[in-house]
Amino acid sequence: MISIAFDLLGGDKAPEETVRGLVLAMETRSDFITYAVATKDVFDRYQKILNPFLSSGRLKEITCENVFEMDDEPVKAWKEKKGSNLHKMVDLVNEGFASGCISLGSTGGCLVAGTLGIGRLKGIERPAIGVLLPSKQGGFLLIDAGANVDVKPKNILDFARMGSVYMKFLGFEDPSVGLFNVGEEKSKGDRLRQESYELLSRSDINFVGNMEGKDAFFGKCSILVCDGFIGNIFLKTTEGVSDYLRYEMRDAIRQSFMTRLGGMLLYPALARIVKRADYSNYGAAPLLGVKKVFLIGHGRSGRIAAKNAILQTVKLCSENLIEKVKIVGES
Amino acid sequence: MISIAFDLLGGDKAPEETVRGLVLAMETRSDFITYAVATKDVFDRYQKILNPFLSSGRLKEITCENVFEMDDEPVKAWKEKKGSNLHKMVDLVNEGFASGCISLGSTGGCLVAGTLGIGRLKGIERPAIGVLLPSKQGGFLLIDAGANVDVKPKNILDFARMGSVYMKFLGFEDPSVGLFNVGEEKSKGDRLRQESYELLSRSDINFVGNMEGKDAFFGKCSILVCDGFIGNIFLKTTEGVSDYLRYEMRDAIRQSFMTRLGGMLLYPALARIVKRADYSNYGAAPLLGVKKVFLIGHGRSGRIAAKNAILQTVKLCSENLIEKVKIVGES
Repeated sequence: MISIAFDLLGGDKAPEETVRGLVLAMETRSDFITYAVATKDVFDRYQKILNPFLSSGRLKEITCENVFEMDDEPVKAWKEKKGSNLHKMVDLVNEGFASGCISLGSTGGCLVAGTLGIGRLKGIERPAIGVLLPSKQGGFLLIDAGANVDVKPKNILDFARMGSVYMKFLGFEDPSVGLFNVGEEKSKGDRLRQESYELLSRSDINFVGNMEGKDAFFGKCSILVCDGFIGNIFLKTTEGVSDYLRYEMRDAIRQSFMTRLGGMLLYPALARIVKRADYSNYGAAPLLGVKKVFLIGHGRSGRIAAKNAILQTVKLCSENLIEKVKIVGES
Repeated sequence: MISIAFDLLGGDKAPEETVRGLVLAMETRSDFITYAVATKDVFDRYQKILNPFLSSGRLKEITCENVFEMDDEPVKAWKEKKGSNLHKMVDLVNEGFASGCISLGSTGGCLVAGTLGIGRLKGIERPAIGVLLPSKQGGFLLIDAGANVDVKPKNILDFARMGSVYMKFLGFEDPSVGLFNVGEEKSKGDRLRQESYELLSRSDINFVGNMEGKDAFFGKCSILVCDGFIGNIFLKTTEGVSDYLRYEMRDAIRQSFMTRLGGMLLYPALARIVKRADYSNYGAAPLLGVKKVFLIGHGRSGRIAAKNAILQTVKLCSENLIEKVKIVGES
């Protein structure tokens, strides 16, 4: 049976939503064991709802003393906060108790925990975060979504190759890779973009050239590859624009009786868009290039998103994602 | 009377929409003269509707032989296509016939025409494009939106100062400047961001620290300053997400009789959002840091956007924007 480690203290809505999410996940699927990490008070508080899983042996409580906070400087905190939730989670993986792990906590903390605590796969210099976003063609993967601020062309190539493995794993056939740039022509962008273009062209992936941000939403590629600085800006802009338009929409609906009625009639269809565009529904983001399955969930996740993220971790572990990513570093 | 130069051949919908836009502009305001640049066949084709303005002396036809195309490599085309629409437009400004100019054409072409053809203001190493975007607080300026791929901290400071001048000119009191970065903390981002942060902190502008893309939409700053690579990506992502959500919305409305009815009731309110978010309604983008008023309109502009852009050029010329921007380079 697959075992995973889950950080109950990560995310803006922890521990309430992480505990509820875990319960939902364990109710949905009964073929995995969870090592849940939290401070003692959390286990005490939720004792009643966790008890059935404890007694059946499907849940193991792992107590930590220290907590990684959202505003901790990641590398410093990693050195100083020994025995934190993230340290415990990583220990469970490294010591073989869990096949993989998941936290909805600070992205910076998870990155450090993944790269320093679990370690990189042979041949992969820079692990990268892959985030799935919606598109007209069923979605695309943004990689790197924020792990690496300064990168080299070789790293971009690794991101593209790991992204291809991940998308194939998710069922996308021969996924196409676009290089995130400011125009389509080969000569566009700075030196990093131009050199990456060359490397990608000569590689074995399905490279379809330079791509602008808007193209990906309209399905022109399955993978949008970039450095983590651009990736992070793209992700946050996407989130910002969606939030802003949603705010404007709410405002528009409230204007009069007629618009309220209109909003009510449209509600189910609108809710579907919001759901599709909301990336807490898109599951957690894998940190690709480390030795074990490591997922980073969205900090805003509620219990449903937490449940999905946990089940996704189980799936990636049981279908052995790492064996497939490993090949990227080895070839 | 103010005279401006207008490139009838720029933009995806030229010359039909540029000619119609010009007519609308001249009908709206009668206190300016336009030097319109186009090939002879365009003037022949629209002779009838342009004639009244020609005979009143408010319109001057300037014929060009060559045309700057969207896919021309800008610097190369600027050297080789002497006598093009952009060359003629720039000549009109340089020879004192027009106080400023406007094109909806290739951004790259306009950039080269502005910086090489018209020239930089003393003390400004890199002119930058400022684009107004909507926000909860009435709008914010993104600068540089795409003129400079590689920049130094000093350039970022100039962008911020020119942006401040422009926003004051538009009526924003003591406009706040945010540095576009991947997090709020001072230590965030790469070296360029960190050094720019230092320079901005010590300057005379109203610097409010690092800002993420989403913050600007919610009115946390009036100016979002960045290099042109990030600016361009931000702009295109914004456009991409809006287009995508609009597409999803249309799809949602078409689903059933009830959703269609809902869409109809909501229509006026929705149209207002679309209008507010559509940056062809936000007017053209000034190229700040060159010696004369130079506006670059959105390539997708229809006649209304073209009209607005022309009237905006007249306003910037008549209220002497350049005298105010000049001070940035001189101090």
